[in-house]
Amino acid sequence: MASLAKFPNYTNQTLNSSRNSHIQSRAKTSHGQISFRNSNLSWNLKLNPSSRGWNLKLNRSSRGLNMVVTASLIEPDGGKLVDLVVPVGPTRELKRREAETLPRVELGRVDMEWVHVLSEGWASPLRGFMREAEFLQTLHFSSLRLDDGSVVNMSVPIVLAIDDTTKRSIGDGTKVALVDRSTNKVVAILNNIEIYKHNKEERIARTWGTTASGLPYVEEAITHAGNWLIGGDLEVIKPIKYNDGLDDYRLSPAQLREEFEKRGADAVFAFQLRNPVHNGHALLMTDTRKRLLDMGYKNPVLLLHPLGGFTKADDVPLSWRMKQHQKVLEDGVLNPDSTVVAIFPSPMHYAGPTEVQWHAKARINAGANFYIVGRDPAGMSHPIEKRDLYDADHGKKVLSMAPGLEKLNILPFRVAAYDLNKKQMDFFDPSRKDDFLFISGTKMRALARNRESPPDGFMCPGGWQVLVDYYDSISKPETNAKFREAVAA
Amino acid sequence: MASLAKFPNYTNQTLNSSRNSHIQSRAKTSHGQISFRNSNLSWNLKLNPSSRGWNLKLNRSSRGLNMVVTASLIEPDGGKLVDLVVPVGPTRELKRREAETLPRVELGRVDMEWVHVLSEGWASPLRGFMREAEFLQTLHFSSLRLDDGSVVNMSVPIVLAIDDTTKRSIGDGTKVALVDRSTNKVVAILNNIEIYKHNKEERIARTWGTTASGLPYVEEAITHAGNWLIGGDLEVIKPIKYNDGLDDYRLSPAQLREEFEKRGADAVFAFQLRNPVHNGHALLMTDTRKRLLDMGYKNPVLLLHPLGGFTKADDVPLSWRMKQHQKVLEDGVLNPDSTVVAIFPSPMHYAGPTEVQWHAKARINAGANFYIVGRDPAGMSHPIEKRDLYDADHGKKVLSMAPGLEKLNILPFRVAAYDLNKKQMDFFDPSRKDDFLFISGTKMRALARNRESPPDGFMCPGGWQVLVDYYDSISKPETNAKFREAVAA
Repeated sequence: MASLAKFPNYTNQTLNSSRNSHIQSRAKTSHGQISFRNSNLSWNLKLNPSSRGWNLKLNRSSRGLNMVVTASLIEPDGGKLVDLVVPVGPTRELKRREAETLPRVELGRVDMEWVHVLSEGWASPLRGFMREAEFLQTLHFSSLRLDDGSVVNMSVPIVLAIDDTTKRSIGDGTKVALVDRSTNKVVAILNNIEIYKHNKEERIARTWGTTASGLPYVEEAITHAGNWLIGGDLEVIKPIKYNDGLDDYRLSPAQLREEFEKRGADAVFAFQLRNPVHNGHALLMTDTRKRLLDMGYKNPVLLLHPLGGFTKADDVPLSWRMKQHQKVLEDGVLNPDSTVVAIFPSPMHYAGPTEVQWHAKARINAGANFYIVGRDPAGMSHPIEKRDLYDADHGKKVLSMAPGLEKLNILPFRVAAYDLNKKQMDFFDPSRKDDFLFISGTKMRALARNRESPPDGFMCPGGWQVLVDYYDSISKPETNAKFREAVAA
Repeated sequence: MASLAKFPNYTNQTLNSSRNSHIQSRAKTSHGQISFRNSNLSWNLKLNPSSRGWNLKLNRSSRGLNMVVTASLIEPDGGKLVDLVVPVGPTRELKRREAETLPRVELGRVDMEWVHVLSEGWASPLRGFMREAEFLQTLHFSSLRLDDGSVVNMSVPIVLAIDDTTKRSIGDGTKVALVDRSTNKVVAILNNIEIYKHNKEERIARTWGTTASGLPYVEEAITHAGNWLIGGDLEVIKPIKYNDGLDDYRLSPAQLREEFEKRGADAVFAFQLRNPVHNGHALLMTDTRKRLLDMGYKNPVLLLHPLGGFTKADDVPLSWRMKQHQKVLEDGVLNPDSTVVAIFPSPMHYAGPTEVQWHAKARINAGANFYIVGRDPAGMSHPIEKRDLYDADHGKKVLSMAPGLEKLNILPFRVAAYDLNKKQMDFFDPSRKDDFLFISGTKMRALARNRESPPDGFMCPGGWQVLVDYYDSISKPETNAKFREAVAA
């Protein structure tokens, strides 16, 4: 798996093509500019296209610079995937007992989801809820500068709020126990804590670009939260499980990387979604795979990655979306051989261009080196004014300029619509625009709710039936699907 | 002035001390990590402390790496100071005539101040009003990524708003004439224009961290501005002058650099202010010089740099502040030999931690490599709630973490207060806190307005008299000081 090359063979052409380089995550390769550490003179490059991801390590020797070539997935942010779960064994019980002696901080549903996210390293290199230095960098720069000077993306604050009473109960303590409010069980210890002010207005304004009331995440997790934030290093006593029949889909970044390695993926392209998959999505994903094959990749694998955490009330719940995704695979709309379906455990901010960076960054940690970005990603209607909250193009623009995401290949979504001539979803052709029908997520949900059928070829029939069943279920109040909350397994 | 050293002499110790390094503006030197361009293998380092700023250029030759050492001031952002004024000569008249043929965009007072700021390169490497890519990076990352991959700080949007009518009048045009609304004279041409949406709410929320009504800059320059922004490359037909008797103080970054060179400054420390100078400020500045001398600098020069653009109504106007600063120098409170007093032409945002980055970044372009940052820089009271808008410590924290400011040495302000025992301003000693009296800017202005005297030793008598005279002048409506607006000379 390793070969050796002399440095002079390493041509400018090679450097110029390395858009994928993860040299310190910061190299701008279109000018052949590269970074290295003086202390050990090691370079870490990735070439594109290649049959797999190539890592090139240059070592200085008496004979000059030697290059060692190995293959692997994209490097996680900070170089190493964070894992904050206490290893299986007696330590877990010791930690649990220690936690019982500590001041307690109660976690709501969204807090639990963040514990899950942090514990598995989606936010690598973050090792716990943010302290103030990380919180400020996130609000002001959407990125964190690491001790070695490198920069990683981090656009949404991952913070834990506490109220005055809890703050008082902690006093001068240096660690606290985190307790799942729904079960009253200890789930984690937060070490070397730092408590600082929770300026909600500033947090909201800088994260969402508005302070209008009615933002779903704000109402769920901020408005009634305490006036203090507590940061620290997290030790999660055992893996977070939901016991909702979907835990097998909740693959950690490490498990996903293992799966991609097992499948021999030489490119991983991630598709974030929180809506049912229609044939336009499927076309896009199939087309992306084709484009990657054309670029020279031999085995591009799709990570179909629905968001599993908090979503707003009118989104289709996770359990129904997972049923729908399953149907889409069963009906052969997507090829299971080149598709991994898993759940991304993050809650949803609906913070548009700010949040899409988080969605992309987390997928780097899961091994994706290509990220598909759509129109108005993570966007929603303005909660008060009659307009979209974000400019539909800002998401992909901001993503392409975001610090720490230089190593990720951004693939802008091509707009698909229903072609009335072909009677199928196809890429929109502006030269015959009257032939196309646009069916928005809102329109799609309205059709299913009213038991109306979409045009043939919009979605596979099995998938559509799941949607119809979902809206049937909520029209009967007694069977209202209550979303299952995260608990420690 | 140049010496030659072999690379191996360049020790880790030397690298580790180079906090001032401006290698691509991005090197984190505490780990000896450096960047270079592969194409020409040139490095550019600056060591600290040194008798002057050192520039080290490493050239690769058959004999290895050679280092050329030269001395100079800190490098401007982007490597070269931008100058957007058309050179003296017939071109000016040609440009003026060309401008007369173009669609016209009217500039208000704040717009004119930004033309001034841009024209002299305070915002280097920005070459005009921001296009959307720059605007978005400013809002989301407080920084701009340049074509070569390096990052410069840019925290406040420098944008020009136009209304629907003006947008229509421009049509498909690629350039416009910028016209001073107060004189109806053409001042500049904006080339290769880009017109994009002005989402005021998002701009305000991301810049100020609040959308509360009553923000002075917002009311002055945003609320009634148009719904479009126009960006492009600026050509300013002749230098911007105000004809208010203070133009001699309006030194451009190039003129300031020339002055620092002339004085043989080996360190330049900048002090941004928009208030009268009291003896606490003077103590701080004198003390800073002493600390720099202790660090080994031979000739640290103070840039006393009052802000000259738009300020809120209850701030002391520039003309009176300049009189007051002059008195402080005449009275010997500051040493004129090591002090340069000049006017910083930017308007004031009162955007706290976001704005202080702009204040610091602009001073890099003027040659300052040390920046003094106070408590709650660029802060103000919340316009609606009974609290300060920003946490008083966030300014210096954000400044120390800001992308593109790594090469600037941040000097946090030591708190000075009136020592009732010594009857003079002194650094606050928390061990005998009852001996100290804090006199805020608000308190100081109230005393002067009421013709009350501050304690002896708070401010030099000549300086205090200027303040008293100012408040006398505004108590007589007929002599109300109206701030003179910027005009093309």
